Amino acid sequence: MYIEKILPDIIRKNEKKILLMVLDGLGGLPDISTGKTELETAIIPNLNNFAKRGSCGLTIPIAAGITPGSGPAHLALFGYDPVEYQIGRGVLEALGIGMKLGKEDLAIRGNFATIDEKRVVTDRRAGRISTEENAKLVSMLQAEIPEIKGIRCTIRTVKEHRLAIVFSGNGLSPELSENDPEKEGLPLRKIEVLKPEADFTGQVIAEFLTRVEALLAKIDSKAKTILLRGFSRQPEIPGFEEKYKLKAACIASYPMYKGLSRLVGMDVIENLSSFEEQVNTLLKLYDRYDFFFVHYKKTDSSGEDGNFRKKVFALEEFDRLFEKISNLQFEAVAVTGDHSTPSLLKSHSWHPVPIAIVSPNMFSDDVDRFTERSCARGMLGIFPATNVMYLLLGASLKLNKFGA
Amino acid sequence: MYIEKILPDIIRKNEKKILLMVLDGLGGLPDISTGKTELETAIIPNLNNFAKRGSCGLTIPIAAGITPGSGPAHLALFGYDPVEYQIGRGVLEALGIGMKLGKEDLAIRGNFATIDEKRVVTDRRAGRISTEENAKLVSMLQAEIPEIKGIRCTIRTVKEHRLAIVFSGNGLSPELSENDPEKEGLPLRKIEVLKPEADFTGQVIAEFLTRVEALLAKIDSKAKTILLRGFSRQPEIPGFEEKYKLKAACIASYPMYKGLSRLVGMDVIENLSSFEEQVNTLLKLYDRYDFFFVHYKKTDSSGEDGNFRKKVFALEEFDRLFEKISNLQFEAVAVTGDHSTPSLLKSHSWHPVPIAIVSPNMFSDDVDRFTERSCARGMLGIFPATNVMYLLLGASLKLNKFGA
Repeated sequence: MYIEKILPDIIRKNEKKILLMVLDGLGGLPDISTGKTELETAIIPNLNNFAKRGSCGLTIPIAAGITPGSGPAHLALFGYDPVEYQIGRGVLEALGIGMKLGKEDLAIRGNFATIDEKRVVTDRRAGRISTEENAKLVSMLQAEIPEIKGIRCTIRTVKEHRLAIVFSGNGLSPELSENDPEKEGLPLRKIEVLKPEADFTGQVIAEFLTRVEALLAKIDSKAKTILLRGFSRQPEIPGFEEKYKLKAACIASYPMYKGLSRLVGMDVIENLSSFEEQVNTLLKLYDRYDFFFVHYKKTDSSGEDGNFRKKVFALEEFDRLFEKISNLQFEAVAVTGDHSTPSLLKSHSWHPVPIAIVSPNMFSDDVDRFTERSCARGMLGIFPATNVMYLLLGASLKLNKFGA
Repeated sequence: MYIEKILPDIIRKNEKKILLMVLDGLGGLPDISTGKTELETAIIPNLNNFAKRGSCGLTIPIAAGITPGSGPAHLALFGYDPVEYQIGRGVLEALGIGMKLGKEDLAIRGNFATIDEKRVVTDRRAGRISTEENAKLVSMLQAEIPEIKGIRCTIRTVKEHRLAIVFSGNGLSPELSENDPEKEGLPLRKIEVLKPEADFTGQVIAEFLTRVEALLAKIDSKAKTILLRGFSRQPEIPGFEEKYKLKAACIASYPMYKGLSRLVGMDVIENLSSFEEQVNTLLKLYDRYDFFFVHYKKTDSSGEDGNFRKKVFALEEFDRLFEKISNLQFEAVAVTGDHSTPSLLKSHSWHPVPIAIVSPNMFSDDVDRFTERSCARGMLGIFPATNVMYLLLGASLKLNKFGA
């Protein structure tokens, strides 16, 4: 991004603290019967008061019309160009179940699948086997295949037929084609080496699959092989300390967000299960960090379920607990979402996301409700999510003057 | 910038005239006791009426969160990408005291400094000597060192311990390291040649410093050497005539803004000290140019002083004199600032800056006050300052259709 060219010359450390609160999937769409969104329906006096005190706007997660996954949406909020720093599917799958990745590790997402004697894929999900069966298979495979050619294999269950595999060691490369034919009734594809640097990795993967298939052949299961997809390593990404001179903490409960935060160099606080625990942790750690990322999951999961009422309740729960942090002396607090998840669509969406920022160095505009339509009239305007970090840095006086 | 790729194909000359009025450091922040900004406090009926007649918005000087210096902020308003065209510190220092620079000239900013017999810097500002003493030293040095190896030396006092030096001649290069150790108690650094093309310049500078130190050694002064910083040449930048087909005049009183205007090919009107003189000059020269840049300084200097009342008065003074130009037949008039200088912060800031543009070819929106919060609701939206010139060109029908 344009702005990153000059950032190293102007970033400075000071004592001021920043809080970024992300309500996952915050934005919604109007309910057909009431004409009101989840935010417009919820009773959220603390968020409304926050909006009243701050500058409001809408953020565009990636670009007009583009629906983001959680990875790119969070990277954008953290100030990284989500198109420049793309995170592979294998890495996301591994981060999503809390696997820790080294810089050189190769992460892969897998499906247990059924093949016939001619190696034609007859079921890409092996009858959508249960998570329990998956766990048993993974446990057996892990015990039998701890390593291949000096490369450590870590195999973990995700859910149903899905698993994640991480290979650790030297000389690995993601430059391989996938074996998934993408349609049932077609033969398993051969995994091709796409660049010479991946020759060795190709041998490791080939031996891995041979051994997996031999082991699965001995037992009674629809799982006969693994479709391997999303070969990837984590991107080389400058961390918060290097890029922003911020000592940063992630206060999240879900593995994916913790993994993304670790990727950008945040300290990840572990063993937080409820949002109340997260808020209490923020209160407790306030003195120890310059920057806090607090992640609230329920707004997204209820939206994905298409459960409008549940999303309204999730907003109201957030609102009640949000009050507890109102006495902390942050120089800049942003409350926003990573993307919209309208209950109406039961999925992430591209719609711009409400944001309010409160800082003694910013304006209170005339927006007094924290909703999509109110924030659209705020004085921050409608702007790329990648600007959020820069607004927070500017508001907390952490950016020196550019030029004289 | 994106837009510059097509500009040469569509720019056209016509008889219509453009006025760009820049109130330096225009934007502010609310006073803690009243909750109102300088613009919201000032009585500015003419500016409010102008906003009412025009299209309003907020400009982003460089990018979200980035506080600009005067150089990049003005270049942006003039339609030049301020990150692409960075102006060195030496050039800015020289322009700031009205020195004229040729394309090949090397400009340097200097500090008179004290060193001990071991060449350790004991005072980076030579006891912050008076401007008078500085002027005496500079006069002596200038007389004794008119040139070195065929390169003309021009030495000028800036203020207190600060001076500017311009070397003129062939074969100069800014690729040298600085001799300033940046901390007292450390030895003077050796000036290193960073690229072979700067070999000759390195010799010139070395001889310059040797002669300066020999001359200073003979007199009773804390100034014993000069710390040389910000070696730079002016960027090669297409001028207004070439880029926009505009014959442009700069009506400013401060040297820095005149220097920047000269850099982009404007005719600079000299010997203007009051804003009233500037306005009268505009009236007088109206027939002679296509484009006028009028610069008003007091809003910035009072903001930098942290003097809220004085900034309010400065706005009111501008407002009174602004009325005098209301009968001129400009096709497009913009009133804006280069950046914000909130009295609250006593410095430049990153906050978007109010703008209003009046043109028979534009809309009057429903903004009727020229303030930060009102302009945020204007129909120009919140947009990069580099767009201002293009809006003015468009409004004055100086851009042909792009494509058929």
